Amino acid sequence: MHTRDPREYSRTFRLTLAYDGTAYRGWQVQPDAPTVQGCLLVAAGQVLGKPVRVTGASRTDAGVHALRQVASLVTSARLSARSLAPALNAHLPREIRVLDALEVDGAFDARRAASGKRYAYLIDNDAVPSPLLLRYTWHVRAPLDLAAMRAALRLLRGTHDFSAFCASAGRDRRPVCTLRAAHVVRTRRLIAVVLSADSFLHHMVRNIVGSLVEVGRGRQEPAWLGRVLESRDRTRAGPTAPGPGLVLVRVVYRRPSSPPDPP
Amino acid sequence: MHTRDPREYSRTFRLTLAYDGTAYRGWQVQPDAPTVQGCLLVAAGQVLGKPVRVTGASRTDAGVHALRQVASLVTSARLSARSLAPALNAHLPREIRVLDALEVDGAFDARRAASGKRYAYLIDNDAVPSPLLLRYTWHVRAPLDLAAMRAALRLLRGTHDFSAFCASAGRDRRPVCTLRAAHVVRTRRLIAVVLSADSFLHHMVRNIVGSLVEVGRGRQEPAWLGRVLESRDRTRAGPTAPGPGLVLVRVVYRRPSSPPDPP
Repeated sequence: MHTRDPREYSRTFRLTLAYDGTAYRGWQVQPDAPTVQGCLLVAAGQVLGKPVRVTGASRTDAGVHALRQVASLVTSARLSARSLAPALNAHLPREIRVLDALEVDGAFDARRAASGKRYAYLIDNDAVPSPLLLRYTWHVRAPLDLAAMRAALRLLRGTHDFSAFCASAGRDRRPVCTLRAAHVVRTRRLIAVVLSADSFLHHMVRNIVGSLVEVGRGRQEPAWLGRVLESRDRTRAGPTAPGPGLVLVRVVYRRPSSPPDPP
Repeated sequence: MHTRDPREYSRTFRLTLAYDGTAYRGWQVQPDAPTVQGCLLVAAGQVLGKPVRVTGASRTDAGVHALRQVASLVTSARLSARSLAPALNAHLPREIRVLDALEVDGAFDARRAASGKRYAYLIDNDAVPSPLLLRYTWHVRAPLDLAAMRAALRLLRGTHDFSAFCASAGRDRRPVCTLRAAHVVRTRRLIAVVLSADSFLHHMVRNIVGSLVEVGRGRQEPAWLGRVLESRDRTRAGPTAPGPGLVLVRVVYRRPSSPPDPP
C-alpha cells in the first residue's frame, strides 16, 4: 500500500518578475522560440528538480517588457520562499529577474485572481530616434498634439465593449472592460500613455495607442476615437502600435494573498 | 599640367551623434572589433564614395554610451550638410544615430576644440538588478549613503592633478583637470553621478565613481577621497566602475563653430 508523502503536497508561490522582452517571443511558452514562461519553466526545473506549473497574470506579446509581472508557480518540491527567488535568478538569463517570491494559498492563480493591470506605452517623439530608447519605445517622428490625444482618451474611460481595439475576436470571452485610468504625459521627447483597467483584450493597449497617434498627428479628430469605440469594429481603429513600446507596469490583486503559515 | 579641381578642396562637418555602446568596443576604430568610429567611417565611405577623416571629441570606452558625442568629419566629397545626417543614418546601425550635421570652418577639430565635457554615471541601487536598466547602469546592491558620497565628491571639485583616477599614466599629457561641476542625484532606485570638466583622463569618471561607491557603502570615509586625490597614486583609489553605466552627455565648445558660407 502506498501512503502519500506529505512533502509531495503541492505548494504555490507568487512570483513578481521584471523582464526586458526584446529577445523573447512574448510570455507564453512556445516549442521553438524563447519565451519568458519557457525560461521560467526551465529554471524552475533545474532548481526544484521536479516539473512545475507556471501561470502569468499577463500574456505579454513579443518584445513587450514588464516591470512587475506576477506569476503563480505550483510545485511539489520543498524549498523556502526566501531561497526561491535567488535560486531561480541564478538559472535565468539576465533579462529576466524574479524580484520577489512569496508562498501563498494553493487556490491562488495569478491570472484569475488579478483584479486589474496597468500598462504604459512609451513613444519617442523626436526627429531622430534615440539609440538609448530603441528597445523601449515606438519612434514617431511627427509632432503629436497631446491635448487632442487627451481629449480622445477621455472618451474611452469607464466601462465599454472594447471589441474595436481587440486583435482577435473570440480569444477574449468577454469584450467589456473598465478603463479605470487613462493618461498621456510628456517628459521632453518621451510620451507615455498609461492605461489601467480591470482586464485588457488582445492587443488592446497597442490598438488604442495606434489610434491615439492618428489623433495626435491630426489625421483624425478626438471624437473619431469615440465613434471607433462605439462601432465595436476592429477595422475602424488605427494601426497596432509596435510591441517594444509596451511595458506591463503592475498587476493589482483585491487583497494580498496571505501565506499559509507564518514565516 | 594638373590644375586642382576646386571641388576637391576638403570640407569639414561637425556631427552630433548618439549611440548605445553595448555592442561596440568603444569609439576608436580597431581592426577586428566593431567600434562607433569604425561604423561611421564605413557609412561615410558608402555615402560619399571617398575616404573621410573622422575625429571624436571623446574616445568612449567599450560599452559606454553617448547622448551627444561630437565628431568632425573631413572629406573632399560634395554633399550638403542637410542631406549628410539622413544619408549617414541610412548606412549606420540603429544603435548609432547622427542627430545633426553642420558645415564648419576647416580648422575645426572636434577633440582639440572642445572646452569641456559632461558625463553621467548611472547606478541601479536596488536588491535585484532591473532588466530594463542592465545596459545603462552598474548594479550596486548595497544601500548607498548619498550624503557621504556628496561630501566626498565636494573634495574633488576645482583644479587638481587627477593622476590618482587615471588608468594609464602617460596616455594623457597633462593630468591637471578642472572639475567644474560634480553632483550625485537619486530618483528611486537610480543614482546618477554627473561630472563636468574641461578635460578627463583615461577612465577618470569610472575611477571616481568606483571610489565614490566605496564611500557610499561605508567602507571609506568621505575624507579618504581627498587623500586619494592628493596622493596622485592610482593604486590608492577604488575599483574602476564598469563601462555600461557611463554616458557622455554633452561636449562643450567655447563658441559655436560657424559655417563658412551662409546656408
